[in-house]
Amino acid sequence: MSETNRSFILRAVKDVYLGDIPRPQIDGPYDVIVQIGQTGICGSDVHYWQRGRIGDFVLNSPIVLGHESAGVVVEIGPSVTNLKIGDKVAIEPGVPCRHCEYCRSGSYNLCPDTVFAATPPHNGTLSKFYKTAADFCYPLPQHLDLEDGALCEPVAVAVQICKVGNVRAGQKVVVFGCGPIGLLVQSVAKAYAAKTVIGIDLSQSRLDLATNVLKCADGVFIPPPMPSKQDGSAPTADEGSEYSAKVAQMIKDHFNLGEGPEVVIDATGAQSCIQMGVHLCKKGGTYVQAGMGKENIVFPITVACIRDLTIRGSIRYTAGVYPQAVDLVASGKVLPQKLITHRYKFEQGEQAFETVRRGGEDVLKVMIEGVQA
Amino acid sequence: MSETNRSFILRAVKDVYLGDIPRPQIDGPYDVIVQIGQTGICGSDVHYWQRGRIGDFVLNSPIVLGHESAGVVVEIGPSVTNLKIGDKVAIEPGVPCRHCEYCRSGSYNLCPDTVFAATPPHNGTLSKFYKTAADFCYPLPQHLDLEDGALCEPVAVAVQICKVGNVRAGQKVVVFGCGPIGLLVQSVAKAYAAKTVIGIDLSQSRLDLATNVLKCADGVFIPPPMPSKQDGSAPTADEGSEYSAKVAQMIKDHFNLGEGPEVVIDATGAQSCIQMGVHLCKKGGTYVQAGMGKENIVFPITVACIRDLTIRGSIRYTAGVYPQAVDLVASGKVLPQKLITHRYKFEQGEQAFETVRRGGEDVLKVMIEGVQA
Amino acid sequence: MSETNRSFILRAVKDVYLGDIPRPQIDGPYDVIVQIGQTGICGSDVHYWQRGRIGDFVLNSPIVLGHESAGVVVEIGPSVTNLKIGDKVAIEPGVPCRHCEYCRSGSYNLCPDTVFAATPPHNGTLSKFYKTAADFCYPLPQHLDLEDGALCEPVAVAVQICKVGNVRAGQKVVVFGCGPIGLLVQSVAKAYAAKTVIGIDLSQSRLDLATNVLKCADGVFIPPPMPSKQDGSAPTADEGSEYSAKVAQMIKDHFNLGEGPEVVIDATGAQSCIQMGVHLCKKGGTYVQAGMGKENIVFPITVACIRDLTIRGSIRYTAGVYPQAVDLVASGKVLPQKLITHRYKFEQGEQAFETVRRGGEDVLKVMIEGVQA
Amino acid sequence: MSETNRSFILRAVKDVYLGDIPRPQIDGPYDVIVQIGQTGICGSDVHYWQRGRIGDFVLNSPIVLGHESAGVVVEIGPSVTNLKIGDKVAIEPGVPCRHCEYCRSGSYNLCPDTVFAATPPHNGTLSKFYKTAADFCYPLPQHLDLEDGALCEPVAVAVQICKVGNVRAGQKVVVFGCGPIGLLVQSVAKAYAAKTVIGIDLSQSRLDLATNVLKCADGVFIPPPMPSKQDGSAPTADEGSEYSAKVAQMIKDHFNLGEGPEVVIDATGAQSCIQMGVHLCKKGGTYVQAGMGKENIVFPITVACIRDLTIRGSIRYTAGVYPQAVDLVASGKVLPQKLITHRYKFEQGEQAFETVRRGGEDVLKVMIEGVQA
Repeated sequence: MSETNRSFILRAVKDVYLGDIPRPQIDGPYDVIVQIGQTGICGSDVHYWQRGRIGDFVLNSPIVLGHESAGVVVEIGPSVTNLKIGDKVAIEPGVPCRHCEYCRSGSYNLCPDTVFAATPPHNGTLSKFYKTAADFCYPLPQHLDLEDGALCEPVAVAVQICKVGNVRAGQKVVVFGCGPIGLLVQSVAKAYAAKTVIGIDLSQSRLDLATNVLKCADGVFIPPPMPSKQDGSAPTADEGSEYSAKVAQMIKDHFNLGEGPEVVIDATGAQSCIQMGVHLCKKGGTYVQAGMGKENIVFPITVACIRDLTIRGSIRYTAGVYPQAVDLVASGKVLPQKLITHRYKFEQGEQAFETVRRGGEDVLKVMIEGVQA
Repeated sequence: MSETNRSFILRAVKDVYLGDIPRPQIDGPYDVIVQIGQTGICGSDVHYWQRGRIGDFVLNSPIVLGHESAGVVVEIGPSVTNLKIGDKVAIEPGVPCRHCEYCRSGSYNLCPDTVFAATPPHNGTLSKFYKTAADFCYPLPQHLDLEDGALCEPVAVAVQICKVGNVRAGQKVVVFGCGPIGLLVQSVAKAYAAKTVIGIDLSQSRLDLATNVLKCADGVFIPPPMPSKQDGSAPTADEGSEYSAKVAQMIKDHFNLGEGPEVVIDATGAQSCIQMGVHLCKKGGTYVQAGMGKENIVFPITVACIRDLTIRGSIRYTAGVYPQAVDLVASGKVLPQKLITHRYKFEQGEQAFETVRRGGEDVLKVMIEGVQA
Repeated sequence: MSETNRSFILRAVKDVYLGDIPRPQIDGPYDVIVQIGQTGICGSDVHYWQRGRIGDFVLNSPIVLGHESAGVVVEIGPSVTNLKIGDKVAIEPGVPCRHCEYCRSGSYNLCPDTVFAATPPHNGTLSKFYKTAADFCYPLPQHLDLEDGALCEPVAVAVQICKVGNVRAGQKVVVFGCGPIGLLVQSVAKAYAAKTVIGIDLSQSRLDLATNVLKCADGVFIPPPMPSKQDGSAPTADEGSEYSAKVAQMIKDHFNLGEGPEVVIDATGAQSCIQMGVHLCKKGGTYVQAGMGKENIVFPITVACIRDLTIRGSIRYTAGVYPQAVDLVASGKVLPQKLITHRYKFEQGEQAFETVRRGGEDVLKVMIEGVQA
Repeated sequence: MSETNRSFILRAVKDVYLGDIPRPQIDGPYDVIVQIGQTGICGSDVHYWQRGRIGDFVLNSPIVLGHESAGVVVEIGPSVTNLKIGDKVAIEPGVPCRHCEYCRSGSYNLCPDTVFAATPPHNGTLSKFYKTAADFCYPLPQHLDLEDGALCEPVAVAVQICKVGNVRAGQKVVVFGCGPIGLLVQSVAKAYAAKTVIGIDLSQSRLDLATNVLKCADGVFIPPPMPSKQDGSAPTADEGSEYSAKVAQMIKDHFNLGEGPEVVIDATGAQSCIQMGVHLCKKGGTYVQAGMGKENIVFPITVACIRDLTIRGSIRYTAGVYPQAVDLVASGKVLPQKLITHRYKFEQGEQAFETVRRGGEDVLKVMIEGVQA
């Protein structure tokens, strides 16, 4: 058991390397050790790499990166009953404390003591072996492979967003952003029998993905840029929001949305999208903030108030979300595989991260294979 | 029936007069005519007087002002069964269309065709006689007078806010603003057995009202002003929000609120209060925007998102709210009478409005008596 | 306009005839007159015909029968904006009072003063012309015909049942009964992306419909009859319920339902099905009583209690349900046309009713054409 | 630490004795050992004593009895932060597994692997020392004693019932049963600012308690017995339910309840009360089954269905309920001390149980002191 445990380690800002850390051991009765087979890269991984912090989470000592993973169970604790050695599993990357009031009331996504993969000071999943809790591993059906399993993570994010937005059959749903999360939110909304799903993005190629490849959007739209002011001055906060209101009206008119969509989801974090989204949302409807950008933005609070909107944030996942994600992938209702644009060997990890950092229209989901042999 | 109908009329911006309009007639089977006995003045009345518009509602022709009224039923349509002539009633000032999807689904506060008193182009209640729908009049118990009845309006606003915020027994509730609505929200929250109610305001005298007269707050707080920057420059948007976060932490510490209040209600509309409120709210908690100020404000969207807050607006009233307001006043659990600082005769209407316009710590609720004889 | 209005009239118990009643006139501004094109027959129509009463509704004077109808708008009141003459519409058969607390709070299905078609003393829709309220008529898309429109009524019943049961994507749903309502509930649940839908019935041909024609059920089951007791005595209440519990376990085992379905819907009203349903339902799950049989039945109350079930009844329709039904039919996600087993001319009305009364496996939905010329 | 651990042990049906079991040891990091100071006796304790089983829980080997306890913390595990040695605590008697889907989704009351005190095969709290989990112990404010702490258990049961029933300010609430749970439910409903609370019982002395001592009921009622049939035959199931409907109408009339109470709670488990409760409940209202009697009863299912009732069961407690119970007792809003009718020393345990078994109007809450010295 003194096997090495090859890992992709973030030593300091912009400083990653492949190194060996101790192979994890089963300590608790519900522990399980998974040999990681596939890992997707997420923007937050790149963020820690490039900046060393997200909000209150600061890199003070080296951590292993990666949190969108699937693998094969290689060892289980004595109380584990839901898994057996050899099972292919998707890994929910945050294990909460189970004792705080958030955990006990079903909001474990808010637990302050969650051990979340690749969130300092906790190691991520880009190791050969990763230890976690059995109930946060979800067996994959035979016909799914480990790439599918790793992709359950962004699908789970989308499922949680739709849960928070209470997306239901028959609704009109507008999603800002056609990156991986935005596209998967559209896919989940469509799987939930939303009547009309509209995707908004600046990139035609991504909108084409929504329409033609994932077939998750009934319509797509590129918001026109705000025209420059004649005097060349920068627009004021109010002028920006007013312009967003105008674009919102264009979207309503273009798609014949009547009073507006019951649910608006922003997966961009961009100020103009947030404003458009609030202005677009039907009275009494729900707006979900799913993407994160600047800490503070100019927000049309009066419109939100007099239209009786419900504004929600979505963060991580809650009970039942991961199983639902696995089901949606297994049934073919959501097709995250179509998002994969790049695949790398474990040894090419830095190259994979560099690809995500560089970005561009041709980069959606980048996968890293597990350590071989 | 060709009696005159003395009214307090807004002819144009900053131009009011006492004049006669036709006495209303019973048209429909559910119509009722009320002789107005007392009317409270609200900020929105003054707003129309001074500026001629609120949002999309613009004064294009004269209207009667006033919408917080109670009176005595003097005539009823043939299908009216819930009222009889001589009943003292509180008047819910907006009668919705009853046919749109908002009305049919129980969200009549969002009906776009509501006939709302003193919202252009609809006349308000500052007449001798006012016609409305029987089911929007609520009989007062014997021991309540017409002043109590008129005050049911701001109490109903507070009840709706607490309904939207889902204020429940055992919760910690922080309310920004100790004007009439803020104080009544605190009173309703206390009546609902909230565990801790905290009032925030800049005015010590209003905080004293909360603590000593209405006895609705368990604690009160004056937020310290943001210190000037050493270089004399104005704070940036992010600096302002960060300072609000600091004050939020002070409030948490001062009142030992632990993870923060489950419900935060802003009854000010001020940017700094909105920011403090969002930063203060417990993870998974509810923030209600009840006051209206600037259209757009700098908003800590990332905090709202990662804390999984529910942000709601509150507008007008929904079914069951007015009866609840009458009950709360009748039972003495809420004491809006304590808010009255000035009383005027009908003929002194302009003076009454001028008092509200002038404002100041000594002005809370200003009442206008109905037309006599 | 003094045209005759041919109608199918219930004069007294078991006594129907074709007669003329006055053509309805537009009275109110929102009135609309529809020339009826197709009408489905429902069990309740037959019930009034055969017994003259359902619950508190008693036939004391003749009424026109029929309430599942669609037709063409031939006249509209001056305030009608959602319809125009010539529109094909589905008719929601109950128009509530719009003034009571149920109506105002969005529960108009509970309004005691609803004018419900063919519920004494109100006339039904089996006339040439029928007057109703514009907002209770729903325009049909071009590609739907009036048969589709009439069938929106049972679809709306199923939509309401699924709304009450909060049927959502990913759930396991078991439906007792494969008559028209049971089959449509299964179809709606499937359209809502329920993970597993199971239909239960005693008739193999109806189960085949579910599986092969409507394709709404992932699995079907025929409950075995309770074996006779050895001593020939009738089973006690407790024995009956215990046997139902055993069948519930068989169903769980047969379909590998684990802890049981999140939602159970009974569309039979039969005591044994109700018992099975309660015993079957997952802890914390929802059981919906949709079918009506005997007034009182032996009920496993302790199981319902300790499993923390939510037991709901479903009655009529609420806001948004009819539009959703029209959408589901228009999109082809629900296929009520497959339920039609018999079609009659208006003059053959009694024969149509007789067919429903006789019943049998070959009788599902029976349609009556509108008055011709 | 090899101290003895005196305990009140149920060896077999109707066979209890005082014996020594091993003093518990801290095993896990969150373990805590409490020296029990006070324990209330509950009907379920007596049930196990007299019958050896409740539902699926069967006494197969000796267990310690008791589950309504408070005590003083005498030892804590290394990860415990919410408690310190010497703290007085109320003990929530069931510790769930924290890993199943019920636990993770906030419904830990449904966890099948809960270690619940005095539910076979788990030992109860009637020992000198009891080991449990730190987060299931709630520190008592200084001014509460251990009797208050033990009484938090039935208060928590009542809080859960009111949570399940969604009891809110302004509602009318009728409670069947004025035993300890029924009285505490009334008290909690009153603390939650219910407008009208009505208690129903056959015992005038208990109703007097509700009105005069606990002051939790605005009105009380003794249902008249069903008159014998003239022919001396037993009433049929339908006749029984019809009579219950009549009594329900009497209650509505007597208290002027209009359409009926929004919430009905049955704390008796008796068939006639259940029937009355369902017949009494307002359309669209909530009926909560809180008491357990016979497994199966005759139930007015059609009334429940057409009135769109929500029928809920209440079982154990969920997150936030115990803290709320402690708060309600600490604030004096609920006065469970008034329910104590008998107090016994630990050595008198069997006598205490015998008192509860005997029952009678003079027996409400019976307390057993902890082991001394």
